[in-house]
Amino acid sequence: MVEEENSIVKPDNVELVIEALHSGSAERIQAVAEEVHPGDVEVAFERLDDAVRSEVLAKLPSDLLAEWADYLPAADVERRLSTLPRVEQREVLNSLSDDELVDLLQEMEEEDRPQFIELLPEDKRRVSEDLMRYPEETAGGRMTTAMATISEGLSVKAALGELEALREDAEILSRIFVIDSERRIKGIVRLRELAFSTWDTPVTELMNKDQMTIGAMEDQEEAAQMVARYDLMALPVVDEENRLIGVITHDDALEILEQENTEDMEKISGIGGDHGEQAYLQTSVFTHFKRRFGWVLVLAFLALISGWVMHAYEDVLTAYFVLAIYLPMVVAAGGNTGGQAATMVIRAMALGELDTREFRRVIWKEARVGILMGSLLAVCVVIQIQFLLPSRLIPESLSTFAVALVVGVSLVAQVFTSTLVGAMLPVGAKLARLDPAVVASPAITTLVDVSGCIIYFSIAQLVFH
Amino acid sequence: MVEEENSIVKPDNVELVIEALHSGSAERIQAVAEEVHPGDVEVAFERLDDAVRSEVLAKLPSDLLAEWADYLPAADVERRLSTLPRVEQREVLNSLSDDELVDLLQEMEEEDRPQFIELLPEDKRRVSEDLMRYPEETAGGRMTTAMATISEGLSVKAALGELEALREDAEILSRIFVIDSERRIKGIVRLRELAFSTWDTPVTELMNKDQMTIGAMEDQEEAAQMVARYDLMALPVVDEENRLIGVITHDDALEILEQENTEDMEKISGIGGDHGEQAYLQTSVFTHFKRRFGWVLVLAFLALISGWVMHAYEDVLTAYFVLAIYLPMVVAAGGNTGGQAATMVIRAMALGELDTREFRRVIWKEARVGILMGSLLAVCVVIQIQFLLPSRLIPESLSTFAVALVVGVSLVAQVFTSTLVGAMLPVGAKLARLDPAVVASPAITTLVDVSGCIIYFSIAQLVFH
Repeated sequence: MVEEENSIVKPDNVELVIEALHSGSAERIQAVAEEVHPGDVEVAFERLDDAVRSEVLAKLPSDLLAEWADYLPAADVERRLSTLPRVEQREVLNSLSDDELVDLLQEMEEEDRPQFIELLPEDKRRVSEDLMRYPEETAGGRMTTAMATISEGLSVKAALGELEALREDAEILSRIFVIDSERRIKGIVRLRELAFSTWDTPVTELMNKDQMTIGAMEDQEEAAQMVARYDLMALPVVDEENRLIGVITHDDALEILEQENTEDMEKISGIGGDHGEQAYLQTSVFTHFKRRFGWVLVLAFLALISGWVMHAYEDVLTAYFVLAIYLPMVVAAGGNTGGQAATMVIRAMALGELDTREFRRVIWKEARVGILMGSLLAVCVVIQIQFLLPSRLIPESLSTFAVALVVGVSLVAQVFTSTLVGAMLPVGAKLARLDPAVVASPAITTLVDVSGCIIYFSIAQLVFH
Repeated sequence: MVEEENSIVKPDNVELVIEALHSGSAERIQAVAEEVHPGDVEVAFERLDDAVRSEVLAKLPSDLLAEWADYLPAADVERRLSTLPRVEQREVLNSLSDDELVDLLQEMEEEDRPQFIELLPEDKRRVSEDLMRYPEETAGGRMTTAMATISEGLSVKAALGELEALREDAEILSRIFVIDSERRIKGIVRLRELAFSTWDTPVTELMNKDQMTIGAMEDQEEAAQMVARYDLMALPVVDEENRLIGVITHDDALEILEQENTEDMEKISGIGGDHGEQAYLQTSVFTHFKRRFGWVLVLAFLALISGWVMHAYEDVLTAYFVLAIYLPMVVAAGGNTGGQAATMVIRAMALGELDTREFRRVIWKEARVGILMGSLLAVCVVIQIQFLLPSRLIPESLSTFAVALVVGVSLVAQVFTSTLVGAMLPVGAKLARLDPAVVASPAITTLVDVSGCIIYFSIAQLVFH
């Protein structure tokens, strides 16, 4: 990856928006809005100072709010919306794509919903009430209902006729679902097939019968992974009776995966809670604090155990203080290798490359990697001790070799066990039906710090006495 | 995230494939192949034992290889391909989508390429030679040339006529690029617009003129991020003269982002090199070792510095051995908070939420988070010391308060500096035009281990003497 990668959007556009928003002049904002893509506005808002942001929001004309609503955090849209007159509220709500609309309704307090729902036209109201039955993180909670469907048994001409009505609303028109009177999927036909066939061809001859579907209550990430795995443009979502109720589109899938990836990375670093819709700069100091402090506190007190172990070996350490020099190395080597192993396994599971069935093979692989790393590391350190450790640091009662032996053996034992622990904990979490990523690597580090101290000092005691 | 999320594909299908492959019976494999999606085969191969895998590959009939080639790792395809007779090689190569074909050619040794390239039909040969001019990680290296284009100034009828020829080959037909004689993009028209307009409508009236394009030499991740940001179905890729040469499709974008996310997670955990196409179980122990050992070795020797610091404070530590109990806590608190801060900033940058311009605001936010966490942690620990630390552990010369003071102040200082370091290093890397994720959190941990020791012991010296 190269530096450029992070300047995702033509920065000039984002800059334009930021300047316009700072200026506060309605005309300039309006003018820029016509120039840029709402995606640029999204980035601009992520980079605004909180103060400026709420100021801008407070003055944002409703037509722009309507145009941008799909791209702004639901919380922001709601805040602005609640200050608008009813008629403008209606305008904004109607402009929202139905998945964003549901997102917005789910964001707000139970009691605020009705007043907004009653503003919706009959069809949008029914749709949003249907969608709200599904939790936010499920396929049903993320799907859009704006897909293209036609009844079965039509000719191409009739099919195009039915589709013409939908052409504006359908988010994805290139995949058309042929459904029966029960809304069960009979097949999928591509618009290109219709466009290039003679009008009297029966659609049945053109459609692809094997359907890939997902249940509305399944996890949204599973839906996204199916879209990725099977290169789908739209994955049909079905209810308990197997009736088509919506689709997860390719752009929904992208969004879901980015969100899940962020949460995994954060969990691995010991950051709790959901990432939420807010960007880094938009998130308050207190929220950042709340998400991080939990692990920090717990791990701090777990680290006391290492302290007690060190204290328990006071006589060994004070008698042979040279041990202090290599203590951090032995301990750290465990944390680093354990963390690596955990990340490898957690990611492989998230990508579906691994399942708990492969448990034994994972252990076997990591055991060998651990031995390899531990041994080679030990060799390097033993050489360092033999040739570079000033002999004045070594008590008369000890030989350089004895010190090298203790450090070397400890490193092998520590790296080996840490690698295994790092690989086993996520698989264990999975077996316990938890998210493998909850086994944050700081936790692994703290854990193997303890084992490292015990290994190191007990081996020293053994060799030196 | 719930447990189910990791059973990405209907496991029965994957199971079916695995069994069939294990059975080794050509008929069973053939039969299953007709049942399942190649995506299931991909997963099955990721989960096969290396032994079984190479055995299966060795016997894989060329028609199945042709069918699956787009979904198998290029290295595997090449291995099998090289053992096939020329005529079957040609069959397989022709079945590959051109981006996968280029991927395959780039995988193999320079000298092997010509013999395969000469098997290609004229057009595929020209295309692959064009594509190979672009490095693998660029937009040009990842694009497909199978997009739909029509010349400008056509009527809908004429346009559909031109498209009919492409309907089979075009990967994305729902976005059609209107180009001039120089292949410069004049606009984009959606198939639905053509399908539902009268035949004599000029395409110019239907097309959308503002074009979003990316240069062929830009980073592939930037292309993927644009697809995500702007909800694109296909992002046009242009050469130096701004001529349309290919597109990055929505499914390419998904693949790229997953790959880049994996690399970020690995970098953050101190795993080097590219993740490559191989799945976890497919990667050899030695490759795993090579990717992880570098950091482990470097950090082990960096940890020696902490060791020397401890050794330098021998008299303080031995005189007040109670310090040993809280040493690991002070040190670990720094590693954990620094790692959290680094992950937060690295991810925010990868998502484009942050740029180096926001440097000062990041520091200001993290400074406050650090102070908050450090202070609250210190309070908890001071209480623990005051009420739970057995007084027999405290030398006569010291008061419990003195100990509490040293530990508390050290924690605040350590957490504060570590949080700042964790946030500043990735931004620094970015300013140095490096990938922010190279600042692996193990490196930060090792770094703040040193500062932690120094802070802790120097404060102790100050207070106790």
